[in-house]
Amino acid sequence: MAWNTNLRWRLPVICLLLQVALVVLFGVFVRYDLDADPHWIEKKMSGNVSSDLDNEFYYRYPSFQDVHVMIFVGFGFLMTFLQRYGYSAVGFNFLLAAFGIQWALLMQGWFHSFDGRYILLGVENLINADFCVGSVCVAFGAVLGKVSPVQLLIMTLFQVTLFSVNEFILLSLLEVKDAGGSMTIHTFGAYFGLTVTWILYRPNLYQSKDRQSPGYHSDLFAMIGTLFLWMYWPSFNSAVSNHGDAQHRAAINTYCSLAACVLTAVALSSILHKKGKLDMVHIQNATLAGGVAVGTAAEMMLMPYGSLIVGFICGIISTLGFVYLTPFLESRLRIQDTCGIHNLHGIPGIIGGIVGAVTAASANTELYGQEGLAFAFGSSTPSWNASTQGKFQAAGLFVSLAMALVGGIIVGVILKLPFWGQAADENCFEDAIYWEMPKDQKSIVFRSEDPALKASEP
Amino acid sequence: MAWNTNLRWRLPVICLLLQVALVVLFGVFVRYDLDADPHWIEKKMSGNVSSDLDNEFYYRYPSFQDVHVMIFVGFGFLMTFLQRYGYSAVGFNFLLAAFGIQWALLMQGWFHSFDGRYILLGVENLINADFCVGSVCVAFGAVLGKVSPVQLLIMTLFQVTLFSVNEFILLSLLEVKDAGGSMTIHTFGAYFGLTVTWILYRPNLYQSKDRQSPGYHSDLFAMIGTLFLWMYWPSFNSAVSNHGDAQHRAAINTYCSLAACVLTAVALSSILHKKGKLDMVHIQNATLAGGVAVGTAAEMMLMPYGSLIVGFICGIISTLGFVYLTPFLESRLRIQDTCGIHNLHGIPGIIGGIVGAVTAASANTELYGQEGLAFAFGSSTPSWNASTQGKFQAAGLFVSLAMALVGGIIVGVILKLPFWGQAADENCFEDAIYWEMPKDQKSIVFRSEDPALKASEP
Amino acid sequence: MAWNTNLRWRLPVICLLLQVALVVLFGVFVRYDLDADPHWIEKKMSGNVSSDLDNEFYYRYPSFQDVHVMIFVGFGFLMTFLQRYGYSAVGFNFLLAAFGIQWALLMQGWFHSFDGRYILLGVENLINADFCVGSVCVAFGAVLGKVSPVQLLIMTLFQVTLFSVNEFILLSLLEVKDAGGSMTIHTFGAYFGLTVTWILYRPNLYQSKDRQSPGYHSDLFAMIGTLFLWMYWPSFNSAVSNHGDAQHRAAINTYCSLAACVLTAVALSSILHKKGKLDMVHIQNATLAGGVAVGTAAEMMLMPYGSLIVGFICGIISTLGFVYLTPFLESRLRIQDTCGIHNLHGIPGIIGGIVGAVTAASANTELYGQEGLAFAFGSSTPSWNASTQGKFQAAGLFVSLAMALVGGIIVGVILKLPFWGQAADENCFEDAIYWEMPKDQKSIVFRSEDPALKASEP
Repeated sequence: MAWNTNLRWRLPVICLLLQVALVVLFGVFVRYDLDADPHWIEKKMSGNVSSDLDNEFYYRYPSFQDVHVMIFVGFGFLMTFLQRYGYSAVGFNFLLAAFGIQWALLMQGWFHSFDGRYILLGVENLINADFCVGSVCVAFGAVLGKVSPVQLLIMTLFQVTLFSVNEFILLSLLEVKDAGGSMTIHTFGAYFGLTVTWILYRPNLYQSKDRQSPGYHSDLFAMIGTLFLWMYWPSFNSAVSNHGDAQHRAAINTYCSLAACVLTAVALSSILHKKGKLDMVHIQNATLAGGVAVGTAAEMMLMPYGSLIVGFICGIISTLGFVYLTPFLESRLRIQDTCGIHNLHGIPGIIGGIVGAVTAASANTELYGQEGLAFAFGSSTPSWNASTQGKFQAAGLFVSLAMALVGGIIVGVILKLPFWGQAADENCFEDAIYWEMPKDQKSIVFRSEDPALKASEP
Repeated sequence: MAWNTNLRWRLPVICLLLQVALVVLFGVFVRYDLDADPHWIEKKMSGNVSSDLDNEFYYRYPSFQDVHVMIFVGFGFLMTFLQRYGYSAVGFNFLLAAFGIQWALLMQGWFHSFDGRYILLGVENLINADFCVGSVCVAFGAVLGKVSPVQLLIMTLFQVTLFSVNEFILLSLLEVKDAGGSMTIHTFGAYFGLTVTWILYRPNLYQSKDRQSPGYHSDLFAMIGTLFLWMYWPSFNSAVSNHGDAQHRAAINTYCSLAACVLTAVALSSILHKKGKLDMVHIQNATLAGGVAVGTAAEMMLMPYGSLIVGFICGIISTLGFVYLTPFLESRLRIQDTCGIHNLHGIPGIIGGIVGAVTAASANTELYGQEGLAFAFGSSTPSWNASTQGKFQAAGLFVSLAMALVGGIIVGVILKLPFWGQAADENCFEDAIYWEMPKDQKSIVFRSEDPALKASEP
Repeated sequence: MAWNTNLRWRLPVICLLLQVALVVLFGVFVRYDLDADPHWIEKKMSGNVSSDLDNEFYYRYPSFQDVHVMIFVGFGFLMTFLQRYGYSAVGFNFLLAAFGIQWALLMQGWFHSFDGRYILLGVENLINADFCVGSVCVAFGAVLGKVSPVQLLIMTLFQVTLFSVNEFILLSLLEVKDAGGSMTIHTFGAYFGLTVTWILYRPNLYQSKDRQSPGYHSDLFAMIGTLFLWMYWPSFNSAVSNHGDAQHRAAINTYCSLAACVLTAVALSSILHKKGKLDMVHIQNATLAGGVAVGTAAEMMLMPYGSLIVGFICGIISTLGFVYLTPFLESRLRIQDTCGIHNLHGIPGIIGGIVGAVTAASANTELYGQEGLAFAFGSSTPSWNASTQGKFQAAGLFVSLAMALVGGIIVGVILKLPFWGQAADENCFEDAIYWEMPKDQKSIVFRSEDPALKASEP
């Protein structure tokens, strides 16, 4: 079959259509919330606010910017490790995230910030939109190199929608706590992406095996992504927690977990190599698993040593996953997981959900204080008790997994349709398919029948 | 004519002279403002300040650091796209910005923070100095690869001066609003730079055409610049707005505009390529136009959908500019615009000025509230009305353009003098002219008569 | 002698042992401080806190994140300049810093945050842990390319311990001011590292001379490190200063000093080259010396012009150091300083200590106000006077130097033991020793007898 990867009409049409729809929907539905509205000054003057600083902006904005960097530079550069797919990694991530945040502002807005007439935007909405897109970036990692930007936009459209429904079920119906998104972002994103890539299985992908390996400089570019994710993860997990001690504690726990994770990831990477050498893939990815796995419990009384234990375990499990599980998934289950998101987001996400459930279930007034417990869990409702909270947390994990699998199958089937501009198996992981290339990178022999590529051949 | 690019005495002498002058002027004129002075504690103890946090530092410092990153990493790396000019892009940007911020602290200080005896420095001055240098970085984009660092320092000296005068006219005399600098930074910077490069026209620049194209890895380095500019632009446009809702709103509007801009830039990039392929130049640059174009109106009641519309339009116009206007400017108007700043800062800057004028002209008490309008526009002065504000905004745009053109001609003529160490046409866009090169990059054949280069030839 | 660089058991065992020990010690000793504990809400409700924002988190967190970026991206990428040692530079820095911050939380905690039973963690501890590790990153610069990751972990274990003792002597016993760590971080770190590399002298290091030079793209990666260090240094020097004006002033002084330093570093780099060309090594390093040298005095009334003078001088001295002192140290004193840390941290650190002593000695109530002086120096104790403070500052500098030299000798001797997996002289500065390499970088001929490398030969 001759694949046609020429996107000349497909990509522009979908981009423009989506953006026009967004403009119209924003026009109808979106306004500023009071903290971003000039009428805020009246609230201030009426004495309800003690100082200019008591605007939500000053509580959340620094964290927002850190999260923003994680989505665009963190995820974008993390995926540049492929030697000939750097443009696409960082460029398509940019595209899908820019679309995704707008769509997420609407979807999450309808569920959480709708006053009956308008969605009211403030800085917390911007953070949540970035979070939502974070789960799309995770899923992108599974299909990296094998899908066209048109497919990515369609996937983003559906995934953001499903994410918002799932998040609403967890946070509003089950009243689950998940500030750092172990369940809503990582578990959901990872198993959604894995299901999609399972549906899109490419039996002849070995034909582009040489391009699937990293290059020396592309590995260094990827480390930019890794480090910005690693450094800013404390901001990620604390960004939408309650003001004060909860944000503070979430940052400390995440810092501890991530630090421990680095040591065990390095240890396992060395021990699993026959000459004790380190593998960049593990350093780039498994060192981050600790951040994923404290996502739910970071704002709770996990304790610093608890965070270290979580990081310790995840560094080991994640590295083992890269060495043993990823090849197994590909050969036996036909799941081709380009970036190994199952090891970085999938398993650690599930661990995070479990850790969160256990930590919530052991909450008590001794640890939190009477007032603290009420503030952290809304325990003042008579029906609340810690063990029920723990059970709902566990239920949230299962709901996320179910949504991911069902949603992934549906979206995977849609993306399997043959007219989205996807490349042939032998041309995967190749920027030249979708990008005008500079002269120093043009020398590639295409074995494809793709008419759009013919003229690019040397 | 034999060009001499040996800077051995010229560059050190100008650097040291400028720095000595700055030390002396700082000694005579510059002190700390009250919020950065130990006497602040007395103000605090007297009860005028409710908490330690009510120091200007905590309102502005996070935004300042984001802006700082945009100037040094954002602009610096954005210009590394040339395959053999990475050292100069990032290094000369570093040099001119480090000089420029000091000179801007003085120039802007005399105009805005002078208490009759001293310029009083606080964090807002640091932000404004970075802003001022931002306009020099914009102009640098037009002349990139064709000027020596000595010329850049001279250009910075003059441009910062002119910027400060123009800014004073706009902000203090015309009482124009321009928080994100669509007019003062982008329009002024772009047309100043374009005028300079027009005066410095090099008829034989085609001789270094091969070096004017990007390389694969240099394009990835440039994406670091693009993304940090894109991500931190909400901080840029909100950094010096009024406390509270204005900063909050400016960040939201900029976030929205930039997101929309990415989709339309991608759409146009694909549609304008005969095989629908994306061009890195557009992704690196046109995606940022939305940030430029909401610079003036970001803090106003532009509304989220208004921001999307601005971004939508600018992504299209900017990409069209790269494809059609830049070649036209070079071939017909003899304007050689290396980075295409006309498309990223010029046109979007003008659009931003117009959007700002229209948005200001439609301000009313319904949208802003009585108090809000007074706080945002100083509408409590009896003479104020929205339509006059709009007219002054428009006047500000014309003043900026006029200053840029006149200033650009004068500075261009000065820079045309033949003894500033500029390279011959055939040696442009080449690091080896001004940098000690590593072995892996030395293999270049110089066709020049430049005696300073002779020995570098292989 | 045949070196064995196979780390298969050595590296994993030490990583896991250290991490297990950390988990146990955290379990026994580490809890949250009140601002990160749910009981904080009770303090808030009791009226001791005026707003949610009066949590230490909001004063320090943005600065913390900037410092965090400096340690991991700043130092990590600064050291990627070597053409074949990028993985190790950024990867080993990641490893040692992740271990070091955990160990520093304990060591510094016992000295400064111990309530008799527990170490209480808050955001300030995280910053101080990063600071402590900063001094290890400095020392890493001296031994870069010549030590194994096992040696680095051992060095970190000892250096963090010694750092904490030295810091306790200075800050708690001598009551020295050193907010930006000119003495505790830079002087201590640099002379410790130089002493270690002196002990580890490798007479035949010229055999790997070709790999000790930079590559074009590796120099650009290094500029990422330089710029993030340069931009965020104002946050570094102000991160743990007193709330309010002290933080504000420290940021301004550092900004000024760094800007001046760039101009004089560029001037000297050009003047010292026979054709006036710039050297990337100077731009990458000497431009930062100004940040080191205002570390102690930044929060004091150094005045903006004083900061410029410090930066001015350090840019010159640091560049001269790279050109004349580094070769001298290697050839005459057998000190092989890979990154030239003596020029960036050693001399500027000593200058910083002296500047701090002089600035402290000239503190008076005219400059600071009665209250301000008490707040800044604790001058309300009857025994305090400025000149004594100055003398103690100077004493602190000597103590730091002494600790560095003695500690460096002891640790150097330990690291000289032949079984830590270090490489032979001819295999230094080479990633392939410790990393699984991508295909594009494999072509290296090992001249070593190292059995672990045999099979890697082409």
